[in-house]
Amino acid sequence: MSALDTSSTGLRAAPSPGTARSTVWPVIRQQVSALEPTVARICSYHLGFTDRHGDPSGAEGGKLTRAGLMTAVADGIGLRPEDVRCQAAALELLHNSTLIHDDIIDADELRRGRPAAWTVFGAGPAILAGDVLQAHGLRMVVDDPGPGRAEISSLFAGAVGLVLAGQARELTVRLGPDAGTAEYDRIVEEKTSALLECALVTPALRAGGPEHVLAALRGAGRHLGLAFQIFNDVEDIWGDPAVTGKPVRSDLLRRNPSFPVLAAMSAGSPAGERLRRLWHADGTTAADLREMADLVEESGGRHTAEQRSRDHLDAALEHLGRAGLSPGATNELTALFDRIVNRTP
Amino acid sequence: MSALDTSSTGLRAAPSPGTARSTVWPVIRQQVSALEPTVARICSYHLGFTDRHGDPSGAEGGKLTRAGLMTAVADGIGLRPEDVRCQAAALELLHNSTLIHDDIIDADELRRGRPAAWTVFGAGPAILAGDVLQAHGLRMVVDDPGPGRAEISSLFAGAVGLVLAGQARELTVRLGPDAGTAEYDRIVEEKTSALLECALVTPALRAGGPEHVLAALRGAGRHLGLAFQIFNDVEDIWGDPAVTGKPVRSDLLRRNPSFPVLAAMSAGSPAGERLRRLWHADGTTAADLREMADLVEESGGRHTAEQRSRDHLDAALEHLGRAGLSPGATNELTALFDRIVNRTP
Repeated sequence: MSALDTSSTGLRAAPSPGTARSTVWPVIRQQVSALEPTVARICSYHLGFTDRHGDPSGAEGGKLTRAGLMTAVADGIGLRPEDVRCQAAALELLHNSTLIHDDIIDADELRRGRPAAWTVFGAGPAILAGDVLQAHGLRMVVDDPGPGRAEISSLFAGAVGLVLAGQARELTVRLGPDAGTAEYDRIVEEKTSALLECALVTPALRAGGPEHVLAALRGAGRHLGLAFQIFNDVEDIWGDPAVTGKPVRSDLLRRNPSFPVLAAMSAGSPAGERLRRLWHADGTTAADLREMADLVEESGGRHTAEQRSRDHLDAALEHLGRAGLSPGATNELTALFDRIVNRTP
Repeated sequence: MSALDTSSTGLRAAPSPGTARSTVWPVIRQQVSALEPTVARICSYHLGFTDRHGDPSGAEGGKLTRAGLMTAVADGIGLRPEDVRCQAAALELLHNSTLIHDDIIDADELRRGRPAAWTVFGAGPAILAGDVLQAHGLRMVVDDPGPGRAEISSLFAGAVGLVLAGQARELTVRLGPDAGTAEYDRIVEEKTSALLECALVTPALRAGGPEHVLAALRGAGRHLGLAFQIFNDVEDIWGDPAVTGKPVRSDLLRRNPSFPVLAAMSAGSPAGERLRRLWHADGTTAADLREMADLVEESGGRHTAEQRSRDHLDAALEHLGRAGLSPGATNELTALFDRIVNRTP
């Protein structure tokens, strides 16, 4: 898995419903423009509103995947998009706060095909910009006086804490040699699933939905995050860089313990053992990485990962079905889940 | 002023009432120990609970100034320390989240006389630790179900946003050559006063206090922050490094526009003009800095700063008097304000 990168390029590839796009982007733009000017400039650049000089770029970064999920669930339980607009915008700001910091932590120089914010404005200002987005996203939710305010505030604050805990846990795992897939699941549930659960559950809290609906939506978000992250890990090794948006096999290069690698190493096969030796050696050439990729495949790591991703997507859809949303919203979310996981256009 | 350093050593020098110490430290320890292990280790080190190896150090970092203020106000309006214990601990965590990030942003290698967290654990993990403390501090407040929950949550989220905005504004000012004292006041009100106001106002929100009490406490916090920060700036130039805890004249070395410098440059005197030229030159030797310090004094910058700090302290105490707290608490807070500003033991 791409260490600390909770957005990952696959979520970007999923188109958001037009509703989220038209209702949420204006709120994000307005909130960002009201921030302290230096921070506003960094965030506007990061979100794609402006170029490095502060001039309009005519584009927007990200696909508002989380806002799209939230808006679709809202529709499925009889709320209007406006009823969760503030929360949807806040969730995207919180997500982007983690991206800005991730890029610094990982020294990633590219984000959405452009120079990462810290490379343009410096690490110090970019740290502050991420801090401000985190504080502001939580503030928007805390200050919104609508129904379920306290519950939604707790959900958001808890979710942000989980994302950060997962990122921290991943840093530690990366240092350790033999993380298991159980630890992997835990990290992904924190760093990737938590905000997806937040997106799905918020409308139900706003509408005062019963516990079984909340539980179904939580389960859908949990499995959606796992399905996405595992497929994302597969794509890192065997995907098209033009689609993934990052150099091929960067997880192998960085020795990030992605799911296919963990599955391969735990298979106990000769190929898995060979992979383990290469993993701990220094090899970073394209040939080294290709050899590692072949060993992951030979020891069944790719097959296991692809199967596991499909299983989690099935489980996510099964949970979604139990939430009792309107058929139209369930269909829309089913298609959205599939696009998120499999990066189909 | 010490750029981005919202704690500043002076606040640390002020002893907190024993009540805050005995009621709040245990909560902080408990909350930190429950965080993700890597983050917990970094935060425990930063707070002085442990050394770099994770072994108990038998010490605690910081003086819980903000928790002390909150506890004293609570007492002054008839609350028990336990009624604001969670908020007091959260405020200290939030304050420390900004310190951990500040040290990275400023590349400060020392904090409270020990190597700063980022120098021990790396910038990436320290960024995450600061992020986690921010999210967790807000979460504690958001999740606490006591009276005034929504108002206190808004207060905290807003205050954190102000601190960060002030820090960002300061970064920009540092880049510009001629910040005025009005801009200085605004930055200090954000980066320093906001959390002090939060400390003073929280008990009144918890007790459902009337608007005139809230306004008086807000005003007290605002002026207290200004009085403290300006005196802190004076100490940076003419104070004893053993007391300030940082190298003498570091603001001059870094060309941070501190209050005495701004006052000197805006005096329009020949000494002020000479200072301006030196400020924009490259001189960083001890002799250069001493010459700059002498010019600040010659153009009246020191005198103006000392007078302004006293005026703000008087104003803070006047506002405090209007809050109608119990005489005992007012006396305690009066002494505390004086110790905070003037660093008397």
